[in-house]
Amino acid sequence: MNELYEIGRSKLGRRAYSFDDIAIVPDRRTRDPQDVSISWSIDAYQFDIPVVAAPMDSVVSPEVAIQMGRMGGLGVLDLEGLWTRYEDPEPIFDELASIDPEEATPFLQRVYAEPIHAELITQRLAQVRAAGVTVAGALSPQRTQEFYQTVLDAGVDLFVIRGTTVSAEHVSKTVEPLNLKKFIYELDVPVIVGGAASYMAAMHLMRTGAAGILAGFGGGAASTSRKTVGIHAPMATCIADVAAARRDYLDESGGRYVHVIADGSLGTSGDIVKAIACGADAVMLGTALARATEAPGRGWHWGAEAKHAELPRGARVQVGTVAPLERVLFGPAANADGTSNLMGALRKSMATTGYSDLKEFQRIEVVIAPYPSAQ
Amino acid sequence: MNELYEIGRSKLGRRAYSFDDIAIVPDRRTRDPQDVSISWSIDAYQFDIPVVAAPMDSVVSPEVAIQMGRMGGLGVLDLEGLWTRYEDPEPIFDELASIDPEEATPFLQRVYAEPIHAELITQRLAQVRAAGVTVAGALSPQRTQEFYQTVLDAGVDLFVIRGTTVSAEHVSKTVEPLNLKKFIYELDVPVIVGGAASYMAAMHLMRTGAAGILAGFGGGAASTSRKTVGIHAPMATCIADVAAARRDYLDESGGRYVHVIADGSLGTSGDIVKAIACGADAVMLGTALARATEAPGRGWHWGAEAKHAELPRGARVQVGTVAPLERVLFGPAANADGTSNLMGALRKSMATTGYSDLKEFQRIEVVIAPYPSAQ
Amino acid sequence: MNELYEIGRSKLGRRAYSFDDIAIVPDRRTRDPQDVSISWSIDAYQFDIPVVAAPMDSVVSPEVAIQMGRMGGLGVLDLEGLWTRYEDPEPIFDELASIDPEEATPFLQRVYAEPIHAELITQRLAQVRAAGVTVAGALSPQRTQEFYQTVLDAGVDLFVIRGTTVSAEHVSKTVEPLNLKKFIYELDVPVIVGGAASYMAAMHLMRTGAAGILAGFGGGAASTSRKTVGIHAPMATCIADVAAARRDYLDESGGRYVHVIADGSLGTSGDIVKAIACGADAVMLGTALARATEAPGRGWHWGAEAKHAELPRGARVQVGTVAPLERVLFGPAANADGTSNLMGALRKSMATTGYSDLKEFQRIEVVIAPYPSAQ
Amino acid sequence: MNELYEIGRSKLGRRAYSFDDIAIVPDRRTRDPQDVSISWSIDAYQFDIPVVAAPMDSVVSPEVAIQMGRMGGLGVLDLEGLWTRYEDPEPIFDELASIDPEEATPFLQRVYAEPIHAELITQRLAQVRAAGVTVAGALSPQRTQEFYQTVLDAGVDLFVIRGTTVSAEHVSKTVEPLNLKKFIYELDVPVIVGGAASYMAAMHLMRTGAAGILAGFGGGAASTSRKTVGIHAPMATCIADVAAARRDYLDESGGRYVHVIADGSLGTSGDIVKAIACGADAVMLGTALARATEAPGRGWHWGAEAKHAELPRGARVQVGTVAPLERVLFGPAANADGTSNLMGALRKSMATTGYSDLKEFQRIEVVIAPYPSAQ
Repeated sequence: MNELYEIGRSKLGRRAYSFDDIAIVPDRRTRDPQDVSISWSIDAYQFDIPVVAAPMDSVVSPEVAIQMGRMGGLGVLDLEGLWTRYEDPEPIFDELASIDPEEATPFLQRVYAEPIHAELITQRLAQVRAAGVTVAGALSPQRTQEFYQTVLDAGVDLFVIRGTTVSAEHVSKTVEPLNLKKFIYELDVPVIVGGAASYMAAMHLMRTGAAGILAGFGGGAASTSRKTVGIHAPMATCIADVAAARRDYLDESGGRYVHVIADGSLGTSGDIVKAIACGADAVMLGTALARATEAPGRGWHWGAEAKHAELPRGARVQVGTVAPLERVLFGPAANADGTSNLMGALRKSMATTGYSDLKEFQRIEVVIAPYPSAQ
Repeated sequence: MNELYEIGRSKLGRRAYSFDDIAIVPDRRTRDPQDVSISWSIDAYQFDIPVVAAPMDSVVSPEVAIQMGRMGGLGVLDLEGLWTRYEDPEPIFDELASIDPEEATPFLQRVYAEPIHAELITQRLAQVRAAGVTVAGALSPQRTQEFYQTVLDAGVDLFVIRGTTVSAEHVSKTVEPLNLKKFIYELDVPVIVGGAASYMAAMHLMRTGAAGILAGFGGGAASTSRKTVGIHAPMATCIADVAAARRDYLDESGGRYVHVIADGSLGTSGDIVKAIACGADAVMLGTALARATEAPGRGWHWGAEAKHAELPRGARVQVGTVAPLERVLFGPAANADGTSNLMGALRKSMATTGYSDLKEFQRIEVVIAPYPSAQ
Repeated sequence: MNELYEIGRSKLGRRAYSFDDIAIVPDRRTRDPQDVSISWSIDAYQFDIPVVAAPMDSVVSPEVAIQMGRMGGLGVLDLEGLWTRYEDPEPIFDELASIDPEEATPFLQRVYAEPIHAELITQRLAQVRAAGVTVAGALSPQRTQEFYQTVLDAGVDLFVIRGTTVSAEHVSKTVEPLNLKKFIYELDVPVIVGGAASYMAAMHLMRTGAAGILAGFGGGAASTSRKTVGIHAPMATCIADVAAARRDYLDESGGRYVHVIADGSLGTSGDIVKAIACGADAVMLGTALARATEAPGRGWHWGAEAKHAELPRGARVQVGTVAPLERVLFGPAANADGTSNLMGALRKSMATTGYSDLKEFQRIEVVIAPYPSAQ
Repeated sequence: MNELYEIGRSKLGRRAYSFDDIAIVPDRRTRDPQDVSISWSIDAYQFDIPVVAAPMDSVVSPEVAIQMGRMGGLGVLDLEGLWTRYEDPEPIFDELASIDPEEATPFLQRVYAEPIHAELITQRLAQVRAAGVTVAGALSPQRTQEFYQTVLDAGVDLFVIRGTTVSAEHVSKTVEPLNLKKFIYELDVPVIVGGAASYMAAMHLMRTGAAGILAGFGGGAASTSRKTVGIHAPMATCIADVAAARRDYLDESGGRYVHVIADGSLGTSGDIVKAIACGADAVMLGTALARATEAPGRGWHWGAEAKHAELPRGARVQVGTVAPLERVLFGPAANADGTSNLMGALRKSMATTGYSDLKEFQRIEVVIAPYPSAQ
């Protein structure tokens, strides 16, 4: 089972698997797509679809957050993004969409140097709340203490703390780190926290009282963390490890079910299917939604790690624009490359393999079948 | 043997193999190609070659079905294709061969929206029957109840029910599903049914009384099901699993031999050889025959999943035209890329490794030797 | 050890390795290149270098055979090639070097349709003998009975029977096959025979009394046998299997050492090193010598399987011309791509890893380290 | 653990891993980058960063050696390079940067044919010493006896003996080989020696009394040793093997800690992270520093094996110029490809995974996750 291979005489390592390394296989039963439920709930919040739009400037504007809610999902606004640094960020998005590749990183470094304005946090969240949908905002662990009161005062239904990696045990000699356990305990709203990329990291985060865990390490299309810092958490393994923590913590806690939200490398509908198959309860999408007509990135996509002043670990990448958000999620698809009708594909996949809800579908058989090219 | 690898701490998976992952190796004996038999029979029908032309519009027209029969094989007409929707589909084939790639999916969606005309089913099958060859037509499971009586009345020797995946246990809350067991039992003609991509799926289909099973999951060159729905059934593993079901069902049924027809990813003669080596009794060819001069697709190829209105899971792909059907099957070949003299290659491969008939050849030794590029 | 993997529930397979899958690693000792011997002998014949030029028209002309002998190796003339079909084949070589790719296969099929003239066999071998070097000629198993008397009368030191696969047990209902055991027993000259691609095939050939075995299945750069007939014998595994037969036959026969000559996929000096490391006593080179200025192919290369009238399983490929034969074998090299100074590289590799002769070097440690691209 | 796979019936081999085959994964703890120490010491010499600039003409000039020292690292001058063969090598560097690719190898062969001048060794080392930084120079094992006295007289703090492979047991019938053990014992200065690519090779070198071992086999971007001589020592395995020798020799010697310096294939900051994770104490950088504005190679890079007169086993490769040395080492980075802020990346990686010094970081968990392309 937990097989270790010898890398060299003083080092062992596990084999880890990415989505491209695996596939699901049909079994003896099939089902009508209409009979399949892909609904999902966390805490008191019900969603028709298991999709959370990632708190990234290229993906979620206040307007997109509203649309996501209306379509049955959840949009999370990045409260450290351009929308809370600029009264009107639209010209910046325009400029970023047209500058040369070699200018992109310095440009990102510059525009994100502008300070965050607390009143803009309040204003953006109010705009989403006014539309009557579930409100969610995200801060990095570094900024949480500075701005969380502003966020709570503005009113959010779900609070997201998101970094490439977030641990329950951050050590610092100079700064008093955020005590996640105390913080979450005292907070009124449910917290989703991550990334966590291993069983133990997830277990510790679950013990802080979080309602949901982001499983992943920011390893999406726009990330170069493997090349820059040598870190890579292949998603199939990552999700299955974090799901094991969910199962063991459920037992340890006497019944608290912490939701696992896959976060990273989810570029196509096939990836979404595999994430659930590996144990995720829902998926947080970046690239896949950055391709929507309404996405603020205008066909471009970048992550928080791309704007780092000293050590950028990601780039602005062109993902293109394929269709309006509604068609990206629900079709009809005008192509067959897994970039639109994401929910139809998930439903079809579950029907073809005979499953009726997401929780059951986590048990489907998976095979290891790496493929080098696009196929 | 049935080794499971840990994908993550809550998920195990088998390794699955595609044709590109394997090769056959010669052994101590060789044989004259003339002494090799590649004949095959199913029910009362004898065939000189183990080739079934796939029920796809780009592969089989009534005329191609007739030619296939005359050359010793079997051509299966898609009874939900353009030939049963249009009195004269030729102009549609012409147009499809010339439109731009980005127009292809919408065009397919549109032309297949035309309803199927029962009288055209009758007419097309009559045309094939008149030529004196074995007559076979295919319906999808969804349409079988609607049209099977028309098909039987028109007269077929073999009835094919083909979908990407067909299960003996389809569940629906809204529509009464086809009871395959009852349906096959009551039918007068032998039924070939599939795809089945696992041991259990095949076992259940065998128990319905089918004469043959299509092993595969529509995973050919024109399919993008892995990218769109995350499903992939690598063919070497798929065939060897379904062949195991054949062996076990033979025992369970006290002697009923259900034929296994490999269906998918059979692009070259080398793939055909490997399919038999993994346990197939015959092969259903799409791409490989779409390259014939007589193929209706005019060098283009597409599958049923490409025309889906909401969720296309395949594309129109250019396969080119290499030679007349007879040379594609029997040579002489004017090139060495595995696209012509498919039967000569099979015969040569069996002779080189010392085998004299297809059933014996299923026992040949296979090695795992993946190769990334063309080699 | 002899580990089998489950391809599917009714099929197991071994993992087989190509040269690209392996590498040798240095160990604790190093040695002066001058102290390294790369000499080799078979029967009464001594060679300074373990290189046999392959009986292929693009590699060996009578003139090249003479040069190979003078440089310490062995050149084998293909006695079914253009030199024994045409009084003056030079114009054909010229034309072949300039025709379009799509014309190459038909052209080869046509020029090799010309019959073989026995008197040309006599004449070509006499030319080589007159130069005072070791004389070797090759026939295919199919032609051996027809021409071997001519060959013996002309006088050869070593007789080579070479096909993609040659078995000691060829079965035919129509033609009386060559009884290799009887044939070799009655012959006066030592016989080298192959290809053999498995332990059992090699064992049976050794029992015929052959002096040397060609290990391989014609799997070089110019072959497409994997694509056309699904057959592939990855060379590292093939050589190590045949070398195991040598060891076991040595015991069984009470001391007869049958030489193993690796034949196929030996494109660079690194491949030659690996072939010896896997257990070969010598190497038969095609592509690597087709790059010499003196090679008759003029920078092009093709094998016997490329000219097959019905089922060509190889192509004319451009290998380029890198240097005169002497520099290809002994340097100095003007580049670092493994195409020249083949013997210097072998010597250097043995010195770097501390070995002093070829027999010892067969024991060197090998690691599995596949690499997809050129590196 | 030390699992062997069957390559063929007479040959077993280990699986060996390169940096591209592995990644590190975050765990349950994180840490402030400011609290992370990346300092390193060998013998009496302390360094702020674990970086040794490789003794290669394209990387280290006397000026670069001085700068490396001032920035907290170590620059090693190649005492057999252009700086000790020419009074003013700058015009040669200029010319080499502009000649055509096919001229590069002959040009290198020619300019390195100029003899080494002892007085230039003295002069170059004096220049570095005058700057007040740690002085280190390198000779090949072949030249050590000829020039070491010159080097010692000139005054070095650290003496480096570097070849593609260096063994404690070099065998020669013609030349009295360097007795490393005796040589190192009698020397006043600490010696760093390598490459060593296996446990045993490293163990034997440690027993000579060396202070540090270079782990590797010259397998960087500019090397073609796998293609030419079939030798390849994948770095992750190589380092972990040599680190095992360090551990076992520490026990055997009763407490002598021999430093392991990874040497080869360290092109990006991610590779540096992985080298430490596999057990290295420090890294010797070629390509990564050849990209600095100050590097003498002017954006080109080549190794000692590229200039070999008979058997070049490397090429001049273009690595480009990305930033001044200080930014390459410490940032800020203007891109996210792992070519600048190498030390910031190492620090970040250690912080993200919760480690506080290099020695601890050698214990971090590593996963096997090969990736074919850039990701």
